[in-house]
Amino acid sequence: MDICDLLGIEYPIFQGGMAHVAKAPLVAAVSEAGGLGIIGGAGMKPEELREEIRKVKRLTSKPFGVNLMLLMGYIEDQIKVVIEEGVPVVTTGAGSPAPFLKELKEHGVKVFPLVGSASLAVRMERMGVDGVVVEGKESGGHIGHVSTLPLLTATLQKIKKVPVIVAGGIGVPEAAQAMKVLGAAGIQMGTRFVASEEAPVSDTYREIVLKANERSTVEVGYRFRHGMRLYKNALARKLLDAEMKGDEKLFEQLARGTLRRAVEDGDPDGGMYMIGQSAGSIWDIKPVAEIIKDFAKVLK
Amino acid sequence: MDICDLLGIEYPIFQGGMAHVAKAPLVAAVSEAGGLGIIGGAGMKPEELREEIRKVKRLTSKPFGVNLMLLMGYIEDQIKVVIEEGVPVVTTGAGSPAPFLKELKEHGVKVFPLVGSASLAVRMERMGVDGVVVEGKESGGHIGHVSTLPLLTATLQKIKKVPVIVAGGIGVPEAAQAMKVLGAAGIQMGTRFVASEEAPVSDTYREIVLKANERSTVEVGYRFRHGMRLYKNALARKLLDAEMKGDEKLFEQLARGTLRRAVEDGDPDGGMYMIGQSAGSIWDIKPVAEIIKDFAKVLK
Repeated sequence: MDICDLLGIEYPIFQGGMAHVAKAPLVAAVSEAGGLGIIGGAGMKPEELREEIRKVKRLTSKPFGVNLMLLMGYIEDQIKVVIEEGVPVVTTGAGSPAPFLKELKEHGVKVFPLVGSASLAVRMERMGVDGVVVEGKESGGHIGHVSTLPLLTATLQKIKKVPVIVAGGIGVPEAAQAMKVLGAAGIQMGTRFVASEEAPVSDTYREIVLKANERSTVEVGYRFRHGMRLYKNALARKLLDAEMKGDEKLFEQLARGTLRRAVEDGDPDGGMYMIGQSAGSIWDIKPVAEIIKDFAKVLK
Repeated sequence: MDICDLLGIEYPIFQGGMAHVAKAPLVAAVSEAGGLGIIGGAGMKPEELREEIRKVKRLTSKPFGVNLMLLMGYIEDQIKVVIEEGVPVVTTGAGSPAPFLKELKEHGVKVFPLVGSASLAVRMERMGVDGVVVEGKESGGHIGHVSTLPLLTATLQKIKKVPVIVAGGIGVPEAAQAMKVLGAAGIQMGTRFVASEEAPVSDTYREIVLKANERSTVEVGYRFRHGMRLYKNALARKLLDAEMKGDEKLFEQLARGTLRRAVEDGDPDGGMYMIGQSAGSIWDIKPVAEIIKDFAKVLK
């Protein structure tokens, strides 16, 4: 089944559920323009999540999603909120959706896990998910080990029943078109949507996406089992040092609260700016509707 | 100008100049089939290089290339051999071709530097090279920091005068087609050609490419300023440990001679197997002519 028909959207364009960034103004704008806006549910307490969902509903009547990190403490209550509020799509990260899959599907929620390997995609397909989002390591924020091109290639050799959405490194329509030619059912973008008028982020965050080239990010945290791609500012350099020393406690201490410092305060040196290597191809801030229109042309 | 017309080849398919692997039997087979075979000149003494070039010439009358690492001690003598033997194409890594560019061009040698960033590609274009090979970090062997998709995207935004060849993560024709749609003038592959009948490598090396999935490699050596992607065997794990400890001397000691141990001896635990993440999409050993034929279909 076509991914757009399956989800009731116009274009196969997901907006990544970025924690602290993917809030109602961005999510609603993406869905309203025909894509799938996705609330970044990670870090939201269940009642905060409910409030964010309701905000989106006030702004659009079109389908949208919620991204949930499955290892969060209050995940069961988040799932309950998602079901109660009738959210049509959930994308999942950090853990297996197995314990919640039956319940979500019984309530008509479509489930798309984010995966970083073809073997994990296969496990998810067997589990009965509605589709997968494969995310290459050129993405911003939390990342796996495989780059988008070989990841998508390997996954498409193994996944035949459910749609495969691809994320990581897509900043311009030509890149989306290339992924479609390779066999992706759709794309997910994060960084491109940070550089939108509607993204509820500090101006500093947006400007960093514009200023960054493809060499402006670093990978940190692999040694402590949570790799992330960040803009290489003073904070990122400190995190790299802590990692080099093997000092996990210092690493966590340095990281604490810094995402908020990027998104809300726009602190250029002390904020944690999660941007992908696609930033090296993004040079303008646009309204979400224009971004969707640009990409829709090549994905139709 | 079309890359095939520029180089006198039939298909825009380069075979990566892999040290110890890209020798006459493979190089000649690729060129004979219509691609551009490239001798891995790194590590060859000038007279060894001359002998290898002559072997290729005895096997094919079609164009071929030599890959040179510019920081090697005897690079000037290698350049002399390349010119004396009338080699039509040189790809370069590890350093700038600036000191040799004028001389090479005066003798009709086309120069294609390997680069890992768009900014470096721009510098090379300004310098007057004939084209660039952008290589994503999903490649096997020596790697940079940017994945293929964002690297090619960013480069194509900036390079307008010379052809851009793309390497890294390409194991199947669909991936090559996707890169062509994005705007690449051609592709370069290494790992796919290791899994060929003609590659002069141990059976172990070939089998490792088949066995490997997209998660089977690791990145080592970044801390010591020479990142490499290797098959994750016992040796790779030891190198990772040495890197984690910051022990560069141990790292170099462990690495010494191990490429030969992979290519020639086929030692599964002690050899250094340079393979890319594309190995996760390669499941058969084929004659080079068949590989070229498969890819030629989508690149015409």
